[in-house]
Amino acid sequence: MVVFDRLVSPAVMALLPAEALRIDVGKSLRCHTLAQSEIEQLLVELAQAGNRVVRLKGGDPFIFGRGGEEMAWLQRHGVACHVVPGITAASGCAAASGIPLTHRDYAQSVRFVTGHCRNGEVDLDWPGLVSSGQTLVFYMGLALSETIAAQLLRHGMAAEMPLAIIERGTQPQQRVLIGTLGELPAIIARQRPVSPSLLVIGEVVSLYRAAVVTAEIPAEALTA
Amino acid sequence: MVVFDRLVSPAVMALLPAEALRIDVGKSLRCHTLAQSEIEQLLVELAQAGNRVVRLKGGDPFIFGRGGEEMAWLQRHGVACHVVPGITAASGCAAASGIPLTHRDYAQSVRFVTGHCRNGEVDLDWPGLVSSGQTLVFYMGLALSETIAAQLLRHGMAAEMPLAIIERGTQPQQRVLIGTLGELPAIIARQRPVSPSLLVIGEVVSLYRAAVVTAEIPAEALTA
Repeated sequence: MVVFDRLVSPAVMALLPAEALRIDVGKSLRCHTLAQSEIEQLLVELAQAGNRVVRLKGGDPFIFGRGGEEMAWLQRHGVACHVVPGITAASGCAAASGIPLTHRDYAQSVRFVTGHCRNGEVDLDWPGLVSSGQTLVFYMGLALSETIAAQLLRHGMAAEMPLAIIERGTQPQQRVLIGTLGELPAIIARQRPVSPSLLVIGEVVSLYRAAVVTAEIPAEALTA
Repeated sequence: MVVFDRLVSPAVMALLPAEALRIDVGKSLRCHTLAQSEIEQLLVELAQAGNRVVRLKGGDPFIFGRGGEEMAWLQRHGVACHVVPGITAASGCAAASGIPLTHRDYAQSVRFVTGHCRNGEVDLDWPGLVSSGQTLVFYMGLALSETIAAQLLRHGMAAEMPLAIIERGTQPQQRVLIGTLGELPAIIARQRPVSPSLLVIGEVVSLYRAAVVTAEIPAEALTA
């Protein structure tokens, strides 16, 4: 049986064997179908009942996917599990938009940060985030993007720093919005990007060339 | 035709159509079969001669894969290209060892850093690397691991910070060496890990449980 999430694409769902039982525990940001602890408990119960259970997520389970919490809960209850890696949103969006995350001339490190925080507050290490030579990728950063931009500016990042918002990355409807850190509020107001959107901030964004890149990944590449 | 790298596994090479021409531009760290600029020029020439060219790399092309440089060179010569994302070493090694890269209780961000630098010098933003709540993953960090550990300690990271060396991650011969930052030189001296090895530093390493995780990814997962 397959316990799946909201962010799993129809193309991936279509790969499941027809006879596999599917359980939807999909969640939107503030409207959980099942609470995280209920999902963890469900996985333990299904496994202890003797089922072979696949927990199917979008992206990579160990990068903002709460795979670590689910694995730890299963281990604590004596359920063996095996983790299959996935392509995290940053890699998918980078490839589909033609914006590399590292580059010898621009970024010797890349940092994935979540803009969606515990108690509605963005409690991040702002001084560390403005250091040079790194690309920042904010997951779930759209709702907090104005706070993020204001804090980065306040801590010394240049207003001219290139920035991309990749809306619905890797999907046929993908939109790539390009600008600078200082322009972020205006871009949001004018273009009104929606979730899921990834925020990429760094010199690497200057490598983006709209004309040359195609967003959609050919179907044969998904199985290669 | 397929222009491939040293780090592409035999299992992936076996997926290529038998009739596809294969060109090996594989490189070891200090012994390049072809220089990077020669690879870029080769890609342009093959494409301009009318071939459909696949540039096949291990991991993700846009995370320390020099895909950005190759794409930019192709674009400058009017060659359209399409980038297919891959599973970067950090995701693969995390899944295969059972060490999540983020976790609500331990790490709200993850940073990928290269320990292999331009002129043999490790010129990194050490104060930014020791900030709390983040997981550090060093790619190609083995040769410089003692410098990395010494600098992190000097800039205030605790000697008790958990650390993992994942040697030959995701391969059947994978070895996971667990310790603390302070113990790193002793681990290297005693266990003598070889390349490729990934260095993971952060509280998330405390979630590692040797007994419960299997390293090898089932063959069916590779195409799923």
